[in-house]
Amino acid sequence: MISKNSIRFINSLRIKKFRNKEGLFIAEGERLIDELLNSSLTIKTIYHTSNWDIQIAKTKQEVVQITSEEMKKISGLSTPSNVFALVYIPEYEITEFESQKSLTLALDDIQDPGNLGTIIRLADWFGIDNIICSQGTVDAFSPKVIQSCMGAISRVKVIYCNLEETLRDLKAKQNLSIYGTFMEGENIYSANLSSTGVIVMGNEGNGISPDIEKIISRKIHIPAFTTDRTVVESLNVAMATAIVCSEFRRRF
Amino acid sequence: MISKNSIRFINSLRIKKFRNKEGLFIAEGERLIDELLNSSLTIKTIYHTSNWDIQIAKTKQEVVQITSEEMKKISGLSTPSNVFALVYIPEYEITEFESQKSLTLALDDIQDPGNLGTIIRLADWFGIDNIICSQGTVDAFSPKVIQSCMGAISRVKVIYCNLEETLRDLKAKQNLSIYGTFMEGENIYSANLSSTGVIVMGNEGNGISPDIEKIISRKIHIPAFTTDRTVVESLNVAMATAIVCSEFRRRF
Repeated sequence: MISKNSIRFINSLRIKKFRNKEGLFIAEGERLIDELLNSSLTIKTIYHTSNWDIQIAKTKQEVVQITSEEMKKISGLSTPSNVFALVYIPEYEITEFESQKSLTLALDDIQDPGNLGTIIRLADWFGIDNIICSQGTVDAFSPKVIQSCMGAISRVKVIYCNLEETLRDLKAKQNLSIYGTFMEGENIYSANLSSTGVIVMGNEGNGISPDIEKIISRKIHIPAFTTDRTVVESLNVAMATAIVCSEFRRRF
Repeated sequence: MISKNSIRFINSLRIKKFRNKEGLFIAEGERLIDELLNSSLTIKTIYHTSNWDIQIAKTKQEVVQITSEEMKKISGLSTPSNVFALVYIPEYEITEFESQKSLTLALDDIQDPGNLGTIIRLADWFGIDNIICSQGTVDAFSPKVIQSCMGAISRVKVIYCNLEETLRDLKAKQNLSIYGTFMEGENIYSANLSSTGVIVMGNEGNGISPDIEKIISRKIHIPAFTTDRTVVESLNVAMATAIVCSEFRRRF
């Protein structure tokens, strides 16, 4: 049983302003919630229908059984699952990752939730623990991103910040290389790449913004392998991220 | 002006059966239609509103001006564009690519239109001219795939066939290596890869089917780069394709 007020409250979390105010995001589906239960994230409430195996839940969450009809009222899926959760948005400090000696991804105004979800999954795959995002990047805790990146959101730290300031700091204080892809960059397949550093990926339409470009210390380029063709689509940013991360990781 | 019959005819092309019967597919948007006009594909009819620059059209197509209201009735986009086209589905013969000495992608029951669209764009980027698909692979000429792969559909040949037979033939007659990704495969980053051959990508849920697996001559594996994590999402098939193609192409 779920009250009208709760339904209203849950649906308000589809809007970024209310997610940030309440510090909660929405997750749906057995596999995703199973992964979240076994992660460092904290689930506040689980709503489930009678088909869900309640044994999976831990003692610390509130667990509420609801009907399929009620599930339809809170679900954003075209085919609602049998389990739905409200999860606390994790808060990470920039300092936490400054001490890391690894690769970091930086996103300069990525707009598409599907692209961000894919990039978080790629970071998870390539062992990249931190993604720092400009304030103009789409919210990683929006339902679309959460459903597309699955459990990766519980393992990869996504941090929103003033990207320009943060990159300047990382470059000056930690002497990290700041990589970015540009048409005039060095061929990534033959370039020297370092095992640590920050890789900046730019906006879908405009690429890396001029203010961020000034901070880039290593311009790289992914070459196309076409011969007789005049028109070639540019790579989608998620595909470019896959290729760049693979190329950095294969070296070390 | 567009008749009710034409609207009905056009909307029937959203269904595979009618596309195949009529030999036509739907394309929308200025950039896509601009690319198609400059490609080897043949456009049958262009429907446009008064905002579209009719100078772009060539003489051989039928060109019909319609109102924005009429465009809404034929468009599948949430924000209809000012131009819409019916395009002849190209028919390629397997023999055409058998003579090619290059890389070929083979798709074993790829289900998601977005994944297929991304894979066609990747083939275009990496100079892979031919994609051979099992009959169970989603239709490359469905509106969703066309809109997501953009002009790449005019440059990459997508051929549906009995994949098992075709792969057996390619292996026997042309002595081509047939690659496929498997958990127990050789690490792709250190494996010897050839400049020619066929790379098989499997279904989103089930991977490469057992009958196709028997034909694979080279099993390869994309390793994850995580250390302390127990649960890692598998790579989405489009991302795996990006990594595999990049790795094949960077060698030669």
